[in-house]
Amino acid sequence: MHRYFIELAYKGTHFCGWQLQPNGITVQGELERVMTLLLREPVRLTGAGRTDSGVHASCFVAHFDASSEELHKDVTLLYKLNQLISSDISVYRIYPVASDAHARFDAVSRTYQYRIAKVKNPFTIELAYHLYRPLDMEAMNTAAKILPEYTDFTSFSKLHGNAVTNLCRLTEAYWAENVQSKELTFTITANRFLRNMVRAVVGTMLEIGLGKRLPEDIRQIIEAKDRSAAGTSAPPQGLYLTNIVYPCKTRL
Amino acid sequence: MHRYFIELAYKGTHFCGWQLQPNGITVQGELERVMTLLLREPVRLTGAGRTDSGVHASCFVAHFDASSEELHKDVTLLYKLNQLISSDISVYRIYPVASDAHARFDAVSRTYQYRIAKVKNPFTIELAYHLYRPLDMEAMNTAAKILPEYTDFTSFSKLHGNAVTNLCRLTEAYWAENVQSKELTFTITANRFLRNMVRAVVGTMLEIGLGKRLPEDIRQIIEAKDRSAAGTSAPPQGLYLTNIVYPCKTRL
Repeated sequence: MHRYFIELAYKGTHFCGWQLQPNGITVQGELERVMTLLLREPVRLTGAGRTDSGVHASCFVAHFDASSEELHKDVTLLYKLNQLISSDISVYRIYPVASDAHARFDAVSRTYQYRIAKVKNPFTIELAYHLYRPLDMEAMNTAAKILPEYTDFTSFSKLHGNAVTNLCRLTEAYWAENVQSKELTFTITANRFLRNMVRAVVGTMLEIGLGKRLPEDIRQIIEAKDRSAAGTSAPPQGLYLTNIVYPCKTRL
Repeated sequence: MHRYFIELAYKGTHFCGWQLQPNGITVQGELERVMTLLLREPVRLTGAGRTDSGVHASCFVAHFDASSEELHKDVTLLYKLNQLISSDISVYRIYPVASDAHARFDAVSRTYQYRIAKVKNPFTIELAYHLYRPLDMEAMNTAAKILPEYTDFTSFSKLHGNAVTNLCRLTEAYWAENVQSKELTFTITANRFLRNMVRAVVGTMLEIGLGKRLPEDIRQIIEAKDRSAAGTSAPPQGLYLTNIVYPCKTRL
């Protein structure tokens, strides 16, 4: 068997997330079904992570094995795949990797972005969280700057998550404003993320931006190591997985 | 009664166009219903034009009369209107105008844009026409440059249109490429447009871009003054009404 990475994007609105579910349409399920049809052999994908129901990905990576060693040379494969699959999924690339390359374990960093629309925009209802109340950007950025000082994000993890550790190394976390599109974007990069973590972090920072908490409160919240100390999760439609980085050695 | 202009945007996907229809949800119908409710008097809107089913507007203007002369001073009116109306419509502004100002007859120019996605993009399925075949941009721009030499656009008007004349003065018509978003955009400005005209012009230029016709063929097409000489209409999801210009004197 030969191993490949597949790069894709999807609009999460109509999916029950990335990962296969017994009841519900998922990105993994749709891709596996269409790829099994095209490759005429069972295809099982291993994603770089999982995204929740309604969360988008402008860049997602998964690996799979196939008996052919020339899949990436078949110029019509991508075309057929994109024709057959939902218009909510776009496959960008399929390329060979080392036989032990792993989309999840080899990823050295992941980046998420969270989009907030500050004014009603009929073109982004499904693509951003619409929140028209004034937000204190300076307070939110003060809180964001504190995040990378910590590594244990238990306070922002799903209550019954089954992760072995709750440790994450954050390399960036900041809010930016796009004056033209009247949107705010939060960008966060880490070696790994806990389940529901970005939405819990964003939800907590929004409470800071709305004046319900102080920027420095984020320290007590993290140090409590208790999900109930943090704010409610921000809704899924604003969240995008935007990048996953692999070491060069993964490539064939 | 006091006259006002209302500025708005809408995503046309789920509407049967701007104009009131006996069967079908329209932007005008939705706005009139909600405004009548809020102003507690019947509100009738006169739009700057009409857009077809599925066509978007990032800027649309209409006028209406109301008994209050201070509507524009009610800071909560816009807020309530946007809360009550569909998330596919956003109202930006309501401002007083001269009592004889007319959203349709006073408009001195209108601008439309047509968006084409060159690669599959799950985030723009409803917001652009997806066309992945190679397009000869130079040929399309050669044809676009010829358009403003003519004023009679009968060949691009709906067969049983009821316009008095088919004359339009074009002031701009060009294609541009956005390398980052992998989209092509056609921009066209004129004092007025015939029904279905922009989509017929774009459809014809796409046939030129695909090599089915030559750029210079556009002359014979226009000179034929016959709809059947032109190409098929481009689909609605790529089309946006983006600007409507009024003379200063319209303002109060």
